[in-house]
Amino acid sequence: MSKILGVGIAGLGTVGEGFLNQLKNFKSNSKSEPNIKIIQIAVKNIKKKRSFNVKNLPITSNTIQLSSNKDIDVIIELIGGSSGIAYQLVKKALLNKKHVITANKALMAMHGNELSKIAEKNKVSLNYEAAIAGGVPIVKAVRESLRFNKISKIYGILNGTCNYVLTKMAKEKKGFKEVLKDAQNKGFAELDPRLDIQGIDAAHKISLLSSIAFNIAIDFKNTYIEGITKIDPSDFIFAKELGYSIKLLAVAAKNKKEIEQRVHPCFVRQNSVISKVDNELNAIIVKDKVIGKNIFEGPGAGSGPTAASVMSDLMDVLRGTYNLPLGSSIFKKKKLKIKRMSDIQFSYYLRILANDKSGVMAQIAKVLSSRKISIESIIQKPSIKKKYAEIILITHKTKESTLTSALKRIKGLSVVKSSVKFIRIEDLL
Amino acid sequence: MSKILGVGIAGLGTVGEGFLNQLKNFKSNSKSEPNIKIIQIAVKNIKKKRSFNVKNLPITSNTIQLSSNKDIDVIIELIGGSSGIAYQLVKKALLNKKHVITANKALMAMHGNELSKIAEKNKVSLNYEAAIAGGVPIVKAVRESLRFNKISKIYGILNGTCNYVLTKMAKEKKGFKEVLKDAQNKGFAELDPRLDIQGIDAAHKISLLSSIAFNIAIDFKNTYIEGITKIDPSDFIFAKELGYSIKLLAVAAKNKKEIEQRVHPCFVRQNSVISKVDNELNAIIVKDKVIGKNIFEGPGAGSGPTAASVMSDLMDVLRGTYNLPLGSSIFKKKKLKIKRMSDIQFSYYLRILANDKSGVMAQIAKVLSSRKISIESIIQKPSIKKKYAEIILITHKTKESTLTSALKRIKGLSVVKSSVKFIRIEDLL
Repeated sequence: MSKILGVGIAGLGTVGEGFLNQLKNFKSNSKSEPNIKIIQIAVKNIKKKRSFNVKNLPITSNTIQLSSNKDIDVIIELIGGSSGIAYQLVKKALLNKKHVITANKALMAMHGNELSKIAEKNKVSLNYEAAIAGGVPIVKAVRESLRFNKISKIYGILNGTCNYVLTKMAKEKKGFKEVLKDAQNKGFAELDPRLDIQGIDAAHKISLLSSIAFNIAIDFKNTYIEGITKIDPSDFIFAKELGYSIKLLAVAAKNKKEIEQRVHPCFVRQNSVISKVDNELNAIIVKDKVIGKNIFEGPGAGSGPTAASVMSDLMDVLRGTYNLPLGSSIFKKKKLKIKRMSDIQFSYYLRILANDKSGVMAQIAKVLSSRKISIESIIQKPSIKKKYAEIILITHKTKESTLTSALKRIKGLSVVKSSVKFIRIEDLL
Repeated sequence: MSKILGVGIAGLGTVGEGFLNQLKNFKSNSKSEPNIKIIQIAVKNIKKKRSFNVKNLPITSNTIQLSSNKDIDVIIELIGGSSGIAYQLVKKALLNKKHVITANKALMAMHGNELSKIAEKNKVSLNYEAAIAGGVPIVKAVRESLRFNKISKIYGILNGTCNYVLTKMAKEKKGFKEVLKDAQNKGFAELDPRLDIQGIDAAHKISLLSSIAFNIAIDFKNTYIEGITKIDPSDFIFAKELGYSIKLLAVAAKNKKEIEQRVHPCFVRQNSVISKVDNELNAIIVKDKVIGKNIFEGPGAGSGPTAASVMSDLMDVLRGTYNLPLGSSIFKKKKLKIKRMSDIQFSYYLRILANDKSGVMAQIAKVLSSRKISIESIIQKPSIKKKYAEIILITHKTKESTLTSALKRIKGLSVVKSSVKFIRIEDLL
């Protein structure tokens, strides 16, 4: 690397703009550190109106060309999307022995194994601090500091949009669609919010953390994913009454040779750390056998936080800090099986709409007891629908396959109306 | 560096032992990474009985000799103490171009500037992740990830012993001495706990974080330090009633060219993150202009967490990761003045023992109002001492010099018995 570190930026949205702002303040730390020079900035539409003057910037619309520009040492990919131009650019840049910094979790989750192989072979950096939990330096913490501690579980709130929506639903007792619309108006949700509210974005992120923490290849496609679209206001009321909050958790866990990788709404105890992480905040908890528990919390998105993480990745490249993309060699990663959800044990919140007459509870209890599912608490309330009662149950731990078979049977009872709703309870001890 | 990284360990207490245990599990990550070999382990007393067999280890009692052993590339200093052999060893090792990893906050706080100069000149690492907040990777986070974000405040709970004692005092309503004894029996406090309970240990740590965060030289001796020995059970009762907890906070803040560096007991709002960090846990909050707020929480001490941080520092050396000891060049650090406590503004909790008769409150209020100190809340209660009343006041923000002058005047009032107690309220918004 010369005394000038040549930077190519692809994408100039809010993060790109935030990053350019921060770069202005950069001063080289010492004589041994190179200076930074922006060689090219690739944008889709050069003529697009922007909040700042691009006249004096080396703008181009030929994105892919950045990957072969000889003056560029580092490509900063801020385009987004798991395929298309972002993928082509990053792959070609790595093949051409350029360092890559990306904020693109979808790309890393889908192609991270392949891209890591190229980066590792060519001894260039592939850094993606901004891809997970925005401004929280969790990639560095897990990849460099905590990985040696035999991590057993890494979990948390990794999607700010979902957390914002769930927090508002809980506090304002409004329905999902209304709150989502409000979040979109306020800029806390995308116009196309599907990646977020369906849990896919959080799954991208947890599959990356799981790969680093457990020394396995990235396995996004076997991650269990369930979004937040089916939670409704009454669930928050019952949750509160029972001492819980509802959060969308992303969880990766390892027990001997079995991996859990899952994203779904959870009941979490009100006195847990996670329960108090509200609005657009993110939080990650890392449990391991040496330290115990480390908690990281901060803003999961936004121009400033994301750009700050890009900047931190760039500083690592500048200082010559090299880390393997996934913490350990991709060529030595273990193949471990991801456990099926049906084989995992949870406690459950069940919500059953039934006829409001005597003997109903007895019938339901009988089905559960026949499968050895024991009950921790019960709430029964008249439903807003006349002649019906809402029965809320918290079960003790049982295998998910046992539960689903019981629920099928309960649904078949003539006194029970509609299907039974369940939400898993995450044991955060 | 050769394909073998030669390690010398000085000190084999609980952390040293924990570190040796972790080192057993280390496997080199790739062909390009060196292997680790323990060249020498220096202990004070070779014959000391230990929980494990040292027979096959390269034990020596000649500690200083490690610094000139040609096979040693990295010295791991786990002796402790700000001067004496630890200082001599570290200095000589750096002069001999060996990397140094230390868990010794006292040494770094007292001699960190000098040692950093040698390390920087000789281009060797001086890493001390274990010195601050045990297993929480806060040095890495601030030194590498967050430093570029214009940090405005970094604060938190940095001493596990104090936090344990304060938590127990609050929950069990027992006095300081009783709880401290209990903590000593349980291993949460040293037999000589002065460094901890007087706030000195936390001050060591915050002066280091302040140096990294604000690009200034380490200035331990101008740090304001006040311990927890004067808090008594009634303070916790009043705090709770007023919506606060009592915590020993270490705070570093920067406003334009002025630095605050202080350690003292604080009233913190019960709904703040810090208020919920209990027992021996540590937590650090970093506020900056780009990200907003990042929170780090985890175990601040103990063999496992501390050893894990030493291991993480060693991995950085192994991978050839180099960071300037204090984040930026010690030769370019700014000289900024540390603000005197008397010039800082706080809200205060005041506790006044006075005669239980009418007109007392009016006299006190008059003194405060004459200095434009306004009152937010008042509690007046009969004291357990007959004929006396305990008057509790929460003031709005005022300069500390104004407050102390008012308190002197209040103490002089004939109706007021003994001196007035005050605890600062830390505004955590």
